[in-house]
Amino acid sequence: MITARCPIRVRYAETDAMGVAYHGNYFTWFEAARVHLLDEVGLPYREIESRGLMLPVLEAHAEFRKPARFDDRLEVEVTITEKPGVRLRIDYRVRRPGDGEDVLCEGYTRHAFMDRSGRAARPDRQFLDLMKRHFG
Amino acid sequence: MITARCPIRVRYAETDAMGVAYHGNYFTWFEAARVHLLDEVGLPYREIESRGLMLPVLEAHAEFRKPARFDDRLEVEVTITEKPGVRLRIDYRVRRPGDGEDVLCEGYTRHAFMDRSGRAARPDRQFLDLMKRHFG
Amino acid sequence: MITARCPIRVRYAETDAMGVAYHGNYFTWFEAARVHLLDEVGLPYREIESRGLMLPVLEAHAEFRKPARFDDRLEVEVTITEKPGVRLRIDYRVRRPGDGEDVLCEGYTRHAFMDRSGRAARPDRQFLDLMKRHFG
Amino acid sequence: MITARCPIRVRYAETDAMGVAYHGNYFTWFEAARVHLLDEVGLPYREIESRGLMLPVLEAHAEFRKPARFDDRLEVEVTITEKPGVRLRIDYRVRRPGDGEDVLCEGYTRHAFMDRSGRAARPDRQFLDLMKRHFG
Repeated sequence: MITARCPIRVRYAETDAMGVAYHGNYFTWFEAARVHLLDEVGLPYREIESRGLMLPVLEAHAEFRKPARFDDRLEVEVTITEKPGVRLRIDYRVRRPGDGEDVLCEGYTRHAFMDRSGRAARPDRQFLDLMKRHFG
Repeated sequence: MITARCPIRVRYAETDAMGVAYHGNYFTWFEAARVHLLDEVGLPYREIESRGLMLPVLEAHAEFRKPARFDDRLEVEVTITEKPGVRLRIDYRVRRPGDGEDVLCEGYTRHAFMDRSGRAARPDRQFLDLMKRHFG
Repeated sequence: MITARCPIRVRYAETDAMGVAYHGNYFTWFEAARVHLLDEVGLPYREIESRGLMLPVLEAHAEFRKPARFDDRLEVEVTITEKPGVRLRIDYRVRRPGDGEDVLCEGYTRHAFMDRSGRAARPDRQFLDLMKRHFG
Repeated sequence: MITARCPIRVRYAETDAMGVAYHGNYFTWFEAARVHLLDEVGLPYREIESRGLMLPVLEAHAEFRKPARFDDRLEVEVTITEKPGVRLRIDYRVRRPGDGEDVLCEGYTRHAFMDRSGRAARPDRQFLDLMKRHFG
């Protein structure tokens, strides 16, 4: 298992007329957390792209349990539970630290490596090595 | 079954550095399609809110099959398949008309009525009447 | 002078916790209006890009006079007043039709043609011909 | 003069098909910097709103000199130069630290205090006291 915690602070631009964070923005926060996780394991997404590979989102899911509000300091716990093969699943839990263990939002994304022409590609070698190290 | 088709034109702001529409924006297009559907059945979302009710997103899901690009004229087919009870599920299929029957993205959202204080509420009466008419 | 009118409908995603459209979104609506204007004069922005040219925003300005709200049907009047040279200025006025002549927001953007490498480029020939026709 | 520096990391969602940060997003970063400045002077914007006051944007301006890209770590220098009266002007300079003194984007916003009903309001007392302390 690989896990990391990414801080997010809710921007005014991210709220909506219900007075809470618009649900669509959680997917952007998932992205920030994903990028943060790759940093933590030593393989910045920017480097993956510099080698001509991309990791587009094939599927995205989220359940919204409690609202977040402007200026909330959230934490996105981001986890890779299963050793990635050709595909990769990443899980997310959004909490408001200091507010107990309540999960505001829980979700996942699925990805596959792709080359610049949009065709499926073998995962990045450095990525595979890292996963081997983490998942034994 | 209730269904409608909502046109969407991809904005430059909605694209990302992969040269395609950012996946998170599909959830905004789902919202536009949902609002469009409610218009079509004669119950604008704005009116629901003017009666103190909201229909927040409890769950959102999308599968991304083919990318959309800047200036693409898309069509979101939006459908309520099952008669809503306390909860409501809405399905979406995004196509690029003139480009065959290929579905670029498929997804759904789940909702429940809520009052302004954030508590679960009985569905809007006009909404229930409309659903009865449509689902027999 | 070249002018066009572009309809915009305010999305929920575009509102904020003040209950009005977030100011930053007007710049996206300016973009939609700009793209619409180029369509109307027969030179879609997509075609400009397909010839390897881009028209990035060098400067953006807006004054916000009255708020727009969810589901408002707005109209962006978009105008090129002066014959473009190497640079191009575009003006915008956002109104809510049916709500008198009140201008909700007024602004402009400045642009210059650029090639894919990010260097200043001669304006698109077809663009110059069009401007000659319109500005005599 | 009051000044602060707010770090911003460019999200993928904030890039566009030109491969750079979409210009409209700078206004969201200005907002983040503004909120950060108010934190630094000891008057979080959240507290201003909790007293029934808002500080909407009346005018926004930006000049874009050099592009920012995905994952860039930017810094927004945010400054109040003149003692605010009924109105308030805030200036912004966006730099990429480690990249010399080059300013990627420079802009300002103008604001006025407003109550919940949307009417002009006297500035928040705590805000006035703070400004007196800073501007003598």
